[in-house]
Amino acid sequence: MSERYDIAIIGSGSAGLSAALNASIRKKNFIIFGTKELSTKLVKAHKVNNYLGFYGKSGAEIRDEFAKHLEDMNIDIEEEKINNIYSMGDYFALMGTNKTYEASSIILATGVNFGKPFKGEEEFLGRGVGYCATCDAPLYKDKVVTIISYNKHEEAEANFISSIASKVYYMPMYKEEVEVDSNIEIIKDIPIEIVGEQFVNKLILKNSEIETDGIFILRDSISPGQLVPGLELDGNHVAVDRLMKTNLPGCFAAGDIVGVPYQYIKAAGEGNVAALSAASYLDEQKRKK
Amino acid sequence: MSERYDIAIIGSGSAGLSAALNASIRKKNFIIFGTKELSTKLVKAHKVNNYLGFYGKSGAEIRDEFAKHLEDMNIDIEEEKINNIYSMGDYFALMGTNKTYEASSIILATGVNFGKPFKGEEEFLGRGVGYCATCDAPLYKDKVVTIISYNKHEEAEANFISSIASKVYYMPMYKEEVEVDSNIEIIKDIPIEIVGEQFVNKLILKNSEIETDGIFILRDSISPGQLVPGLELDGNHVAVDRLMKTNLPGCFAAGDIVGVPYQYIKAAGEGNVAALSAASYLDEQKRKK
Repeated sequence: MSERYDIAIIGSGSAGLSAALNASIRKKNFIIFGTKELSTKLVKAHKVNNYLGFYGKSGAEIRDEFAKHLEDMNIDIEEEKINNIYSMGDYFALMGTNKTYEASSIILATGVNFGKPFKGEEEFLGRGVGYCATCDAPLYKDKVVTIISYNKHEEAEANFISSIASKVYYMPMYKEEVEVDSNIEIIKDIPIEIVGEQFVNKLILKNSEIETDGIFILRDSISPGQLVPGLELDGNHVAVDRLMKTNLPGCFAAGDIVGVPYQYIKAAGEGNVAALSAASYLDEQKRKK
Repeated sequence: MSERYDIAIIGSGSAGLSAALNASIRKKNFIIFGTKELSTKLVKAHKVNNYLGFYGKSGAEIRDEFAKHLEDMNIDIEEEKINNIYSMGDYFALMGTNKTYEASSIILATGVNFGKPFKGEEEFLGRGVGYCATCDAPLYKDKVVTIISYNKHEEAEANFISSIASKVYYMPMYKEEVEVDSNIEIIKDIPIEIVGEQFVNKLILKNSEIETDGIFILRDSISPGQLVPGLELDGNHVAVDRLMKTNLPGCFAAGDIVGVPYQYIKAAGEGNVAALSAASYLDEQKRKK
């Protein structure tokens, strides 16, 4: 049986990090999923002058301050992408790429870097469309797979699935040079629509079409409604109250994912609140037992 | 005619300061009222570990970082206590101790350091009970005045009014030694109830009673409902939405004043949001003209 965490924090931007500090101070058994880089958005920021306490620092310098804070408190980031989260009643099951995790409460802090779904994406989700190539690879043995990738890190996923599938098309949606195994066909085009009957059979691009049995869309983060089935949204954002509670008991959210303005310190403040609310929730659950 | 500011920020804790940074970045003509000490609450904090980016610093050290940030951005704190704010339709009138200010929008960030009103306080407000001795001094020429003071700084107010009133009783509600003019009678007791008929005529204390024509209650901050008539409250806190809007157009609030948890970075995040909301409000008002 896997370990049951008190709190799982998904995302390592300022909301997730701030939540982690508070989970640690409250002595909760927690895990935080993200990247050692912490936040792509923050690192790319030229200069941030409105984070109270720091003036004239670049995003990368602020990231370093955040990283030092985590280090001083012995907080490690688990470099794992969470693809789906299911509410199981009194706990949540989190589907990572290689492993399943359990947590009594969760804090969603994955930002808004998920873009609009493609036409047909939601319709064919689970019927040829997926978000985790490694997880679903066995389904595509000797079949044709297309990967729409928003991050160079995903090239490893493409290489892995190419060892199983009969053919892999790889569509980079990023600017860096693509370095994938030579048996993978790189396609530079713009996805327009996913079509099929019972299952996916075609991806329509701006300039061509691909016949394919499966399509993996590997974005930096997954839209909240797809990440957590049953989660109540407010437009593209997760609906929360002032204590960062969502409609699902034990599920909290903080940062850009809950709405504008998209600001580092707003996100950090909300992460703080979300962690304290999660701690209160855990204490209540304990009292009920 | 006095200058009309775009934004007046009341309070120099982390919510007010964060609002000021953003008002400055948005190039708004703003004023921030508070103390050079910034925040008594912060300065007294032993160690703050959950302000993302700072680890192991004392409250005073964090205050110094905040002060440096303000200095780097050439933001000055106006050392003035605001006693009342009136919504005048398209602007607000702010009553300082020595001066009246005007602002198109306001951000309330005065914290929660206001305590419960005394019995009779709200009933006799404006009929013998006041919050600004200097402002109302002329009303008490040759009369008996009682000052209930929560801060040693207010001793100057007592000295001033004793040059006008026939008699001044001074009740220190703080621990520091009292140093007031010798014609002022210092009373160490606990206020219970303010009584009167048309006007105040008596203050009932735990161990005695004082016959008095006027009572000034000088707290570190004034409760939001008394500070801004017509403001909608949620219990003891100012009711706000997620964009920090109150029920009064152009009036925003942030920090402890809007509710728990009372956390520095939560307040700073809300100050950021309040300032951006005030900036949007101002832009809208401009477009309407």
